[in-house]
Amino acid sequence: MADEVILLDYWPSMFGMRTRIALEEKNIKFDYRDQDLFNKDSFLLEMNSVHKKFPVLIHNGKPVCESLIQIEYIDETWPGKNQLLPSDPYQRAQARFWGNFIDNKVHGPTRLIWGAKGEEQEAGKKEFIEVLKKLESELGEKTYFGGETFGYVDIALIGFYSWFQAFEKFGSFSIEPECPKLIAWAKRCVKRESVAKSLPASEKITEFVPELKKRIGIE
Amino acid sequence: MADEVILLDYWPSMFGMRTRIALEEKNIKFDYRDQDLFNKDSFLLEMNSVHKKFPVLIHNGKPVCESLIQIEYIDETWPGKNQLLPSDPYQRAQARFWGNFIDNKVHGPTRLIWGAKGEEQEAGKKEFIEVLKKLESELGEKTYFGGETFGYVDIALIGFYSWFQAFEKFGSFSIEPECPKLIAWAKRCVKRESVAKSLPASEKITEFVPELKKRIGIE
Repeated sequence: MADEVILLDYWPSMFGMRTRIALEEKNIKFDYRDQDLFNKDSFLLEMNSVHKKFPVLIHNGKPVCESLIQIEYIDETWPGKNQLLPSDPYQRAQARFWGNFIDNKVHGPTRLIWGAKGEEQEAGKKEFIEVLKKLESELGEKTYFGGETFGYVDIALIGFYSWFQAFEKFGSFSIEPECPKLIAWAKRCVKRESVAKSLPASEKITEFVPELKKRIGIE
Repeated sequence: MADEVILLDYWPSMFGMRTRIALEEKNIKFDYRDQDLFNKDSFLLEMNSVHKKFPVLIHNGKPVCESLIQIEYIDETWPGKNQLLPSDPYQRAQARFWGNFIDNKVHGPTRLIWGAKGEEQEAGKKEFIEVLKKLESELGEKTYFGGETFGYVDIALIGFYSWFQAFEKFGSFSIEPECPKLIAWAKRCVKRESVAKSLPASEKITEFVPELKKRIGIE
């Protein structure tokens, strides 16, 4: 029986982008179903009854939730092509550490950059740049976070890059002068087919932000 | 060369307890170094320069941070005895999902139970019980979270049990009538040698809480 793979996702989600990239890396055909953030359907609520959030990866009827967990699941289920996590246990632990760091440190301040004003927004910008600098320092002179091979940590972070233009516009600041090496890394990543296919155009995200602010009632 | 394993930890930490249990499950001898929460030494700051938090597991000089990541590292590095994560990728993803759920949902409300008063404390108690009920429903009629075998999700949660007496005392409520099956699971777990050796006595935690409140300036 061929694998049935469904992805419940929402196009501007940097978390959903991770799962799309991981599936593309493995050349897995999947049924992409774009969801409405403000009107979640009963299938999503059934498939992720605990958190009621996308992305949800459904493989042969069984749901896997949380994007970082989905990347590991995809890597373990289809191990043949483009290994996403390193084989060495210590390197795997390091990759998981940075994945976790991105989940816990990057999203919070970005929300303040486009969603807040004044001091709160300034604090968000400052924290965001500090976090990016930590990531840039971890990247060092390497091509990708794991070394020569594109993998887990790259996938965890690159989706945020499609939002950088929006952050810069709504936060009135520039990211590249602060973290030129990280931007060079992002530019390398988006040349990769799996990433190019999975990230929306930056302009589309920038246009979407005012609509998002309106819908969540902060404009 | 024999493995050198050091654990920088703090005895009341429910996160550190996870790592102690995982090491005990694998019969790994380790040099336990209890840290001072309020006076972190330079070795800890060097070994976990990003978060500056314990537990830090140091294996042959190399640090691994974050307790859930440490459990996976221990399981992958010493795979022979007492496998902690399931072999099946889907079951592994489910275990990681619940580990993540415990990290994100359990700790927050418990902090309010012993550290807050009035409405805030009541909200913490309510949320804590809701979260425990979700976990109890996931446990169902199984012996352990993974089925017949003690493993990752059990290890992720059981450390909190050593704090239950303190939560009940400072929150003036009872947990067992709300979640009898979860308490029965905890009582099964603490009979296990690895857990018994790694969890401090509940009374010791209860005595410690007023000291903790004083030191962080909330009493």
